Amino acid sequence: MPTAAFLNADKSIDLKPAEAPDLKPGQARINVAYCGVCGTDLHIYRGHMDQRVKFPQVIGHEMSGTVAEVASDVTTVTAGDPVVVRPLDPCGQCGACSSGNSHICYKLNFIGIDSAGAFQHSFVVPAHTLHKLPAGLDLRLAALIEPLAVACHDNRLGRVAPSENVVVLGGGPIGLLNAMVAQTKGARKIIVSEVNESRLKLAEELGFLTMNPIKDDVVKFVEAETDGKGADVVFEVSGAKSAIASMTDLAAARGRIVIVAIVPEPAPVNLFKVFWRELQLIGTRVYEPQDYEEAIQLVDSGKLQLDKLITAEMPLPKLADAFKSLDENPDHVKILIDCSAG
Amino acid sequence: MPTAAFLNADKSIDLKPAEAPDLKPGQARINVAYCGVCGTDLHIYRGHMDQRVKFPQVIGHEMSGTVAEVASDVTTVTAGDPVVVRPLDPCGQCGACSSGNSHICYKLNFIGIDSAGAFQHSFVVPAHTLHKLPAGLDLRLAALIEPLAVACHDNRLGRVAPSENVVVLGGGPIGLLNAMVAQTKGARKIIVSEVNESRLKLAEELGFLTMNPIKDDVVKFVEAETDGKGADVVFEVSGAKSAIASMTDLAAARGRIVIVAIVPEPAPVNLFKVFWRELQLIGTRVYEPQDYEEAIQLVDSGKLQLDKLITAEMPLPKLADAFKSLDENPDHVKILIDCSAG
Repeated sequence: MPTAAFLNADKSIDLKPAEAPDLKPGQARINVAYCGVCGTDLHIYRGHMDQRVKFPQVIGHEMSGTVAEVASDVTTVTAGDPVVVRPLDPCGQCGACSSGNSHICYKLNFIGIDSAGAFQHSFVVPAHTLHKLPAGLDLRLAALIEPLAVACHDNRLGRVAPSENVVVLGGGPIGLLNAMVAQTKGARKIIVSEVNESRLKLAEELGFLTMNPIKDDVVKFVEAETDGKGADVVFEVSGAKSAIASMTDLAAARGRIVIVAIVPEPAPVNLFKVFWRELQLIGTRVYEPQDYEEAIQLVDSGKLQLDKLITAEMPLPKLADAFKSLDENPDHVKILIDCSAG
Repeated sequence: MPTAAFLNADKSIDLKPAEAPDLKPGQARINVAYCGVCGTDLHIYRGHMDQRVKFPQVIGHEMSGTVAEVASDVTTVTAGDPVVVRPLDPCGQCGACSSGNSHICYKLNFIGIDSAGAFQHSFVVPAHTLHKLPAGLDLRLAALIEPLAVACHDNRLGRVAPSENVVVLGGGPIGLLNAMVAQTKGARKIIVSEVNESRLKLAEELGFLTMNPIKDDVVKFVEAETDGKGADVVFEVSGAKSAIASMTDLAAARGRIVIVAIVPEPAPVNLFKVFWRELQLIGTRVYEPQDYEEAIQLVDSGKLQLDKLITAEMPLPKLADAFKSLDENPDHVKILIDCSAG
């Protein structure tokens, strides 16, 4: 039996043999190559999502892998194909699904949170979740397709256009990926606001303007960099109260503020400024198939310096160390788990 | 000299002769027919905008009238033309103006707030603010074109489409006009939530579903009326804390929440719901020329029961009574001032 990393209710992790169920119609078995640790995984590890996750659970959803076998009715992929899983399994019937928004299905099964994920040697998923990768694409970098698809989705819904000025509040993995995607859209200035100096240094290396809102006034900084006009697009990726308080002061007339962060409690928003400058606050969550395709093409193009985001790589048996390390060291950006190892 | 109603700093009103300055290039003199009292006028009267308004000031911006004379370089209108003033005089140079959003110019002169308005026999405006009216259009109803253009703008930015379900939070003049415009867009169900029973009765007469959020749960009401899906568009016109708290619970996946109300202080917004359902909060302010044209066509079509919104009509010398009446009686919807009288 293949090995899987089970996260327990007490947040310990057990490496144990896992069931390898027979395939049902429409399913595929995937040998996992790499799986990144997401901020959401860290939330689960920290106990913030205990009401949603049923322990012991195998989590992990930022994966790459190879098709091991498919059910007889599956024609879209075959054994041996390199793939990534778009980890969304919608109900197909709710108000969101019936209006073409199945990616935010009201009863969504998010694979790796609500059902078993990729921190294991192999797992079974619906074949409709699979995207085939171009031959030869590095499966290590392919594990970044999922978070990159988030950024493609955020940029698409934020309608980032050539020559626009963009502010990213929060320079973690999703913030930096949003900045990188904005760069591919032809954004003129991309300002990353982040409190962690190590992440700021990385953002600078990636070619972005950087500022630390603890040291400088982000509103004045953006005003000066945009000749008093304000930013065309603001990505709120931090969830910080101070960022939410300032985001409406950063945007130009008709500016778009993309709400990427998960903000658990209602937070004060300057609705007068939303009205006064006709701002748009745009909620964005996960991705749609086209965002995955865009992310795959971007990784395949080699245009993005994705390697710089990977601050550590560990084998599956060290998953507990990975969580501990992420939990304790805010300098980390992305830790990749080699799920074929150990 | 023509008579004008000057609002003083102590909120008394003096009827006095006003200067009739010579026309400068690009200007037109307008004989005012009717001018409605806007919620903003009431705010000014109540002293909420003392920092912005320079007293004594002639206010009023919801007007209709007739061109009295034009400067020699003005070719778009001639004496005798029935017109309405779109009361926006932008700077033409700021970040908003240079990006095609001059209606929300960073240095906007709003005629009737920042400079002399229409509560007088005649006044001088830039000719670029004028929209010619179809021959024979009732100048009484034409005074409703300005607030109707607000609703056309709100509906356009909210992208109300046929068969969509719409919720309007707040059944005052702008709320009701938004509901009426949504009806012309082919909205399926239009739910008006309002605490004033007299306004609710009017909303019902106009053909809308109505509910009182003091008596019933607006979230449950909308859920039931939309088969659990939520509304496609929510207009937040009330500015009430409870409405702002609930608005994100009323919208379907990818629903649009149009922020029409002026909310002076930052208010708690459920950004988790914005993220979770990919909602859009869309700030809308005043109007653009196309909204005025749409409003003029709607009034001219006779499709809307605009007469029902006019709860009183008074001559210019009674303007103080109009403010007193609006201030004290929340059952009022729209009071029209006959500026040719008295």
